[in-house]
Amino acid sequence: MGQWDKVSWMKLPKVVDDLIGSFERLPGVGHKSAQRQAFYLLRVPQRDLDLFGNALIELKKKTKFCTICHNLTESEQCSVCVDSMRDDSQVCVVESFQDVLAIEKAGSYKGVYHVLHGCLSPLNNIGPEELYVDTLIQRVRSGKIKEVILATNTSLEGEATAMYLTQQIRKAGVEIQISRIGRGMPTGIELEFADDETLRSSLQTRSIV
Amino acid sequence: MGQWDKVSWMKLPKVVDDLIGSFERLPGVGHKSAQRQAFYLLRVPQRDLDLFGNALIELKKKTKFCTICHNLTESEQCSVCVDSMRDDSQVCVVESFQDVLAIEKAGSYKGVYHVLHGCLSPLNNIGPEELYVDTLIQRVRSGKIKEVILATNTSLEGEATAMYLTQQIRKAGVEIQISRIGRGMPTGIELEFADDETLRSSLQTRSIV
Repeated sequence: MGQWDKVSWMKLPKVVDDLIGSFERLPGVGHKSAQRQAFYLLRVPQRDLDLFGNALIELKKKTKFCTICHNLTESEQCSVCVDSMRDDSQVCVVESFQDVLAIEKAGSYKGVYHVLHGCLSPLNNIGPEELYVDTLIQRVRSGKIKEVILATNTSLEGEATAMYLTQQIRKAGVEIQISRIGRGMPTGIELEFADDETLRSSLQTRSIV
Repeated sequence: MGQWDKVSWMKLPKVVDDLIGSFERLPGVGHKSAQRQAFYLLRVPQRDLDLFGNALIELKKKTKFCTICHNLTESEQCSVCVDSMRDDSQVCVVESFQDVLAIEKAGSYKGVYHVLHGCLSPLNNIGPEELYVDTLIQRVRSGKIKEVILATNTSLEGEATAMYLTQQIRKAGVEIQISRIGRGMPTGIELEFADDETLRSSLQTRSIV
């Protein structure tokens, strides 16, 4: 078996290995699908590879966070904050800019946002200093804002963040309305599959017909 | 509602949109996961983005197909063909270099390969001219080869391709052994879930114990 031991198995070109490694580091991508995507790209026009590659290299260079609301933008201020048609007396506080996208996609909100970039999470060492809480309080103090809608997640940590923000805004001593997004049954979900907390809140928030 | 109509929804930076679009074009990636991956990359070190981006841009420039077996390589000839420890009298014919990788991973084959880059598929207008059949026949005619193992897929098209190759090799008038990969039950699959064809072939290929 001496000769047999010296057989070396096929090696992939280094650039292909690098690419598979990069894909593998993405959330939800395993080794097999990373391979599949790299091999697929071998048959794609160079033009598309250049576009893809340059978008990656330029991604962080060409994006910033809005100086007002910390939303993702390519200018100093995001497209929502600069839009004079949006109501800047109403501020919706969210955890991430993905949340902004989701609310924008729903297409009914015409106020502005404040992106915290996370939520309070003592277990992960994330306190108020790690979030954009101070700039929210500054905005509240500026006197322009009439309502703050707390739209952090309905998770334990999101609720705790909402409660903390309520306290801080009250402490600021400004007379504004603070609200929390409504709780109840999501559309299209069958009652029997809803969790207890959701059922309880949908009973509490029932409306008279 | 006049003012309402003029509200414009949040726009993502162009570079982010480009990146999401590029991810979306990959097999098995939908809009949601493309977004998730692009947003994830916003928090990745620039060094990693450069590596990823450059691998994409260089992917096709730094890879070629082996001049002997058409396997994926970064040099003129692939690492299998140049390895003097591999038995070049035994050629395993496969549809794609992914198949080469799979066989190499199994780690028991020490011959060389021939990658067809597809299989015969009249419905998709893929005939023998679209595949590397001519170079296989040339290799067969060279006189070095003692056995050709037909390892095209066990699909209808793979079988048809194996049959066609058998005819062509016979026509070449060279005295070599032609074999087809064995059919039967895959390891770890329960009998009751095997398809009829697999069960039939596993009965035919039974071995005396």
